[in-house]
Amino acid sequence: MKLVTAKYQGDIFLGKLIEEENVVFNLSLAAQEKEMEFPVSLLEGLQLEEKFLEKIHELSESYHENLLFTYGLTDPDLEWMAPIPRPAKNIFCVGKNYRDHAVEMGSEADIPEHVMIFSKAPTTVIGHQADVLRHKKVTDELDYEGELAVIIGKKGKGITQDTAMDHVFGYTIINDVTARDLQKKHKQFLIGKSLDTSCPMGPWIVSKEDLPNPHELTITTKVNGEVRQDGTTKDFIFTIPEIIEALSKGMTLEPGDVIATGTPAGVGKGFKPPRLLNSGDTIEITVEGIGTLVNNVV
Amino acid sequence: MKLVTAKYQGDIFLGKLIEEENVVFNLSLAAQEKEMEFPVSLLEGLQLEEKFLEKIHELSESYHENLLFTYGLTDPDLEWMAPIPRPAKNIFCVGKNYRDHAVEMGSEADIPEHVMIFSKAPTTVIGHQADVLRHKKVTDELDYEGELAVIIGKKGKGITQDTAMDHVFGYTIINDVTARDLQKKHKQFLIGKSLDTSCPMGPWIVSKEDLPNPHELTITTKVNGEVRQDGTTKDFIFTIPEIIEALSKGMTLEPGDVIATGTPAGVGKGFKPPRLLNSGDTIEITVEGIGTLVNNVV
Repeated sequence: MKLVTAKYQGDIFLGKLIEEENVVFNLSLAAQEKEMEFPVSLLEGLQLEEKFLEKIHELSESYHENLLFTYGLTDPDLEWMAPIPRPAKNIFCVGKNYRDHAVEMGSEADIPEHVMIFSKAPTTVIGHQADVLRHKKVTDELDYEGELAVIIGKKGKGITQDTAMDHVFGYTIINDVTARDLQKKHKQFLIGKSLDTSCPMGPWIVSKEDLPNPHELTITTKVNGEVRQDGTTKDFIFTIPEIIEALSKGMTLEPGDVIATGTPAGVGKGFKPPRLLNSGDTIEITVEGIGTLVNNVV
Repeated sequence: MKLVTAKYQGDIFLGKLIEEENVVFNLSLAAQEKEMEFPVSLLEGLQLEEKFLEKIHELSESYHENLLFTYGLTDPDLEWMAPIPRPAKNIFCVGKNYRDHAVEMGSEADIPEHVMIFSKAPTTVIGHQADVLRHKKVTDELDYEGELAVIIGKKGKGITQDTAMDHVFGYTIINDVTARDLQKKHKQFLIGKSLDTSCPMGPWIVSKEDLPNPHELTITTKVNGEVRQDGTTKDFIFTIPEIIEALSKGMTLEPGDVIATGTPAGVGKGFKPPRLLNSGDTIEITVEGIGTLVNNVV
């Protein structure tokens, strides 16, 4: 199942992608028609856990009955939003979770022994096809990082590796846009990672049932059509269960939490000379089994 | 003005401290009596900006008329909460903002040249008199950090030092409880800073009008009655306007954002041998002009 947050003619709705027909089904409108109470956001939906899925299944049946409330994927009145446009806390991000990327940013000595977590403020989040600001006055080194992101579906603390996947709702794609100069200057990463619009997310959330092995997915990033990152989540240093265990040891994870799992080699700063982002660039990140997240820099 | 979030007989309310009479005035109940629309949380109130203050002033007049809806500060039915029990994003924290603390944690080389920002997840927040969990299975090195915290009252990006104070609503006290071993092990500070209950906040927010010079406040931390930290915000490496300028360069600050300004020398880890927290310890942090935040470790 692929869940969408979008606007149609300006109205925000929750939708379900019907891939075989290239349409989005407007769950919010279908619920309204049925006089069913329905969450106003995916974040609120995830907090309902099982009940949310039951509602979606019930509404989906009505779709198959009458094909109502659907929009073509290229409908000009359809505006994509991040699946969780405003997370309830900062986005958790794993630093240096691919050996080759750790090395390209420094040396073998930079390969971490323990999970490294930093965060991006929720004000950074934008959707598929929204613009990434170049922030020319603030940074000379704007860079991309294509990443698989995990969406938490069930609250927990002290989660062990063997039960960690029970706490995952699904996956999405994140571009962990980074101001390299600020990241370095301020030592702790938050400032360099939290420029407005620096967290494109989407285009949708794929539920975990549809992505049974998140540790075997290709992940590619193109800038202006040229492949820059071509990795696979097989190369994770820390797996998703290891990350969840480390994060939740003393901290409660909550439904709607977003964990970006790190980026493979091939970021702009890793090239010699560096190939950083400029106004006019188009970034496309494809994760196998999810889709492609596209954003322009302006 | 000192604004409070608390529970009375289990009902959460927003209140105003009337210091000269040692009572809290229940603004929420007074608003209900007047059939006035009133925010359900300080976070929501801060988002209303000027309007929120007008409502409080109007309600305060009714207090002076009839002394209704007030509770004594030691009333057993009164339970303190953090003024913002659930911030809408992670708490921003300035690392090493006092020279002596930077040195006690390392050496002169650790005195930062640029503002260093990390964050604490909003799940860490607890109120005055609530218990700090010892997290014995997770950390061997639980430590305290008494800090002045700034509450943002007005949205802004690219805020310059000369207008920064316009964006401040007021101040509170934070105990930036830290697991030193996790802080070190995971390199980026988030994990070691985000254990549940590791952000005692309160007892209230003092509006900036009542604290005209936040850069000349004594700040003391006692553990079991013994003074451990005895600093002054005169010793900030980065002033509040400098911090706000650095943070907001490319990131929008929002009403209700919390910025902990760093801790002076005297943390447990700074002693030789270290004097870390144990179950049964009582931590009292006093910031001049605000009050005293008290929490027990269990």
